[in-house]
Amino acid sequence: MSNDSLLSLLEAEAGEYVSGEEISRKLNVSRTAIWKQVRKLEAKGYHIEAVPRLGYRLTGKPSRLSIQELLPKLKTNLFGRQLHVLDVVPSTQDELRRLAEQGAPEGTLVIAEQQTNGRGRMGRHWVSPAGKGVWMSLLLRPPVPLQLTPQLTLLAAVALSRAISREVPVEIGIKWPNDLLVGGKKISGILLESAAEDERLRYVVVGLGISVNLEEEDYPPELLEKAISLKMSSGNAVNRSELIATILEEFERLYGLYLEQGFAPIRSLWEAHSVTLNNETLLYTPQGSVKGIPRELDETGGLKVELPDGTYRTIYSAEIGEAKVGGS
Amino acid sequence: MSNDSLLSLLEAEAGEYVSGEEISRKLNVSRTAIWKQVRKLEAKGYHIEAVPRLGYRLTGKPSRLSIQELLPKLKTNLFGRQLHVLDVVPSTQDELRRLAEQGAPEGTLVIAEQQTNGRGRMGRHWVSPAGKGVWMSLLLRPPVPLQLTPQLTLLAAVALSRAISREVPVEIGIKWPNDLLVGGKKISGILLESAAEDERLRYVVVGLGISVNLEEEDYPPELLEKAISLKMSSGNAVNRSELIATILEEFERLYGLYLEQGFAPIRSLWEAHSVTLNNETLLYTPQGSVKGIPRELDETGGLKVELPDGTYRTIYSAEIGEAKVGGS
Repeated sequence: MSNDSLLSLLEAEAGEYVSGEEISRKLNVSRTAIWKQVRKLEAKGYHIEAVPRLGYRLTGKPSRLSIQELLPKLKTNLFGRQLHVLDVVPSTQDELRRLAEQGAPEGTLVIAEQQTNGRGRMGRHWVSPAGKGVWMSLLLRPPVPLQLTPQLTLLAAVALSRAISREVPVEIGIKWPNDLLVGGKKISGILLESAAEDERLRYVVVGLGISVNLEEEDYPPELLEKAISLKMSSGNAVNRSELIATILEEFERLYGLYLEQGFAPIRSLWEAHSVTLNNETLLYTPQGSVKGIPRELDETGGLKVELPDGTYRTIYSAEIGEAKVGGS
Repeated sequence: MSNDSLLSLLEAEAGEYVSGEEISRKLNVSRTAIWKQVRKLEAKGYHIEAVPRLGYRLTGKPSRLSIQELLPKLKTNLFGRQLHVLDVVPSTQDELRRLAEQGAPEGTLVIAEQQTNGRGRMGRHWVSPAGKGVWMSLLLRPPVPLQLTPQLTLLAAVALSRAISREVPVEIGIKWPNDLLVGGKKISGILLESAAEDERLRYVVVGLGISVNLEEEDYPPELLEKAISLKMSSGNAVNRSELIATILEEFERLYGLYLEQGFAPIRSLWEAHSVTLNNETLLYTPQGSVKGIPRELDETGGLKVELPDGTYRTIYSAEIGEAKVGGS
């Protein structure tokens, strides 16, 4: 059996399981021979999932973003050192959550060339076409109580903002809690999924979606008002491997700073990059909309908003709209 | 095909999947006939999981705690109205988490006669033998930001404490955050597993383990110093169905109060039942041990501890030991 015949068989099933029995029959080889070929394909950068009773499934091909290319660029100790570069997955978040439940260590990173079911905040669909963005998920196991998880959301926004600014000449503003904007348009999405037992965080899966080299035609027309890519905003294509390495470097450094010194330095950095503070804002909370001027972050990452009557209210969860100052 | 032949086949596999193909062959019936029999068994209180490509698996039998017995006792609108009474599961938490990910509604309850892998705080094993306890998990989908989840941990402790006191003449004290003690010995365990996206809680699975009718011989000897059952402490066996109905009633009422009026009334109730407040205490936090006198709860459910120098520190996560006052 050549590698190619097994590969063709798995590719023909487009990510579905093919039973060992079927492979054995079609290629006229033993189960052991199949297993050896699977190992060889994996060594070449293919990802093949083997599940008892279901069989084999091709979950990733060697992609233009390859482990071989990425690893030498990494300047981190932990982040990205356990690295899974996949071709197509429904969602890197789901993939990494699965690995997290199986005990994957902190810093484990899942990158996909393409997501077929990328998700943003509130379960919204996230445009993530092949080869043009950075769609990845990073595993954290912070020794931090549940109450403080939103601090990590803000930390992720600061890390991503600083990393992008190092690689691409664009001016980035952070909209609370973690949207990165260029010229008022969204350039990336961050989604933290956390699992806790009582007040102890078991893990946090940090999803980072960055529209790197997307062109106008990659977006649904109605999104062009609200979203933009780094290439569209800077005029130049961006090397994705370099960008990923820089993101991991900034993230690991800020995360270390946070574990050592707490939230204070992260809060200052976030506030310095914010486009939300000190502008009149409409906040849609689960309890109704609130109009006011966000003034600062509180200790847990909530937003302290000055209301029209001069009192303050802390908002923990809201979607932000822009309220015009001084009427239409 | 009789119900019995399908049941025997599934029982013989002891919780493993049996493929539709195999059943079809062994019992010489059509796939449609199998499906109809499965529905009939489910109506009788059996739980059978059907998974495409894997087949059927028996996950629960009608138990002495039956839906038929429980439902008429319920005084709730929502809690326990979606009710799964299972015989043996590894853990009701894992079972309900699976249902939660599939979209089960708030109030869904999983009860098991026996857990083979019951878990307590910090992944500790939890003794949960057949038929002698209440091992159950309740699904909440609270419109509450992640920061406030620990309030629900405290709410669960208050609800459980009040419910037990109504059914059994014992004096219950709450050790922060959620251990219920009778005469200094642990009578129940509460474990909240939460899943969040950013600052929004997706769901909370509340695990309640109550040692109801366990006898001394049910415990490993080394646990007898620290744990006790309701029967051992009151001298009388307790009707588990009545207890479950009362727990759900108290829980639903307090949860409604909490959603309407916030944490303040829950905090007062918790503080009134606490054995942790105003006693010198050793708290083992992830950052080291802290000695002091817990004085009250803060707004998020943290414990405000007065240190020996008179200053205050809020503890979000700790195991509590007892520190003797005034030396040995």
